[in-house]
Amino acid sequence: MIIIGERINSTRKTIAPAVEAMDAAFIQKEAKDQAEAGAHYIDVNVATMMEKECERMEWAIKTIQGVVDLPICIDTPSPEAMKVGLMTAKGKTIMSSITGEEKKLAQYLPLLNEHGCSVIALCMDDTGMPETAEQRFAIGARLVEWLGKAGKKEEEMFIDPLVRPISSGERYGRIVLETISRLKKEFPEVHVVCGLTNVSFGLPQRKNLNQSFLVLCMGAGLDAVIVDPTDAKLMALMLAADALLGNDEFGLKYLGAHRAGKLVV
Amino acid sequence: MIIIGERINSTRKTIAPAVEAMDAAFIQKEAKDQAEAGAHYIDVNVATMMEKECERMEWAIKTIQGVVDLPICIDTPSPEAMKVGLMTAKGKTIMSSITGEEKKLAQYLPLLNEHGCSVIALCMDDTGMPETAEQRFAIGARLVEWLGKAGKKEEEMFIDPLVRPISSGERYGRIVLETISRLKKEFPEVHVVCGLTNVSFGLPQRKNLNQSFLVLCMGAGLDAVIVDPTDAKLMALMLAADALLGNDEFGLKYLGAHRAGKLVV
Repeated sequence: MIIIGERINSTRKTIAPAVEAMDAAFIQKEAKDQAEAGAHYIDVNVATMMEKECERMEWAIKTIQGVVDLPICIDTPSPEAMKVGLMTAKGKTIMSSITGEEKKLAQYLPLLNEHGCSVIALCMDDTGMPETAEQRFAIGARLVEWLGKAGKKEEEMFIDPLVRPISSGERYGRIVLETISRLKKEFPEVHVVCGLTNVSFGLPQRKNLNQSFLVLCMGAGLDAVIVDPTDAKLMALMLAADALLGNDEFGLKYLGAHRAGKLVV
Repeated sequence: MIIIGERINSTRKTIAPAVEAMDAAFIQKEAKDQAEAGAHYIDVNVATMMEKECERMEWAIKTIQGVVDLPICIDTPSPEAMKVGLMTAKGKTIMSSITGEEKKLAQYLPLLNEHGCSVIALCMDDTGMPETAEQRFAIGARLVEWLGKAGKKEEEMFIDPLVRPISSGERYGRIVLETISRLKKEFPEVHVVCGLTNVSFGLPQRKNLNQSFLVLCMGAGLDAVIVDPTDAKLMALMLAADALLGNDEFGLKYLGAHRAGKLVV
């Protein structure tokens, strides 16, 4: 599994004041904790800073990459902040995110051409949020085609099937699982990614739902996830699922995590 | 999910002396705890009692059904103990277990005819323990056919794909998942059941593996499980998975468990 650590997001209560005050020590600790917990990318979302977003994006990336040797997942709805992020970040950056909306594609095409980045593409387009697995798969397939024409290799693409709360429709869990499964069958080299927390919105004891959903998604073929890697139980279940699915040769990662004292029960 | 509570098994350290001493209070507490935790069947395995097995089987079933209103899963390799169990137990009993071995089938056919019981059938036969998912599915399909001819309805059949430790081969997790998926696709009315603990044999922090495996199996179509229902985290993840898979209408079971204080995080 490819783990994108989601903690540095200014919609979170503790992150907003730290980004606002440019508290480097706080942000660096968040980055180091996630790296230590197993993150492969550090997600940076400072969109709530509004007109200061570009400046804080540059600051946050430099602050983070000053202490951890990990690439950044630049998470912003602003093409300007994305541009600043792509110019600042070292390593194999992920652009998060594009959609199938024509206007967005046109805006992001020059950035995709200039930077050798990977990209997260959400399964939605100008017709809105798709309802069925077939519609999501169809949009995902078009995004793969479009990204290919824009010069991206399949392993640089991360397709996000878009997770909706099961409290708004009990079918939404299965719809995501079917979308993942179809995308991985059709495009084995393309990554399929999602966040977990949306699925449990509006329900109690959400960690149980998020944990079960991660394992179900992995069973369907998910190979990347946007997640809080400092959630030790979630990470233990993820390592267990990789071992059970034969994705962890000789169980070496699972056993290594055990020896490092990381496998909570 | 159909939950078969596995705790009353005389291979367990606390159960053996209680069965030996006919400690009714102890066994009744085990039964009540499992019923309270959500079991639909109470498994009874007293095979270590050897020549006293038949007598203790009768005693255990009467002792259990004296305090809980649940059917029994009679778990014994002995046709004699099975017969005693089937005559003693009230409700819709499960016979656990037959295999595709000709000698076993011949032994159990009269019992299947006499009693309106359900039955767990393991995916193995005279050729031994099958290696691939195809072989397991083929044996499972033959068992479904044989049980049908023996007068069993599909909803009375529980096929067990046979779980082997991933420590003895990292492919064994996927083999079970594929077997479950094929069986449920071909025979949607037949139950697919398994135990969880074998999968993690020889590995550390086994609960993580057992929990992830249950959720993966549910994603593949498992609809019954032999499990310790007093493991609150396992049950919480199971309820979460049922809600995520759309098997829990309006999330009522998940929400009910939350209100009852059963959803640990």
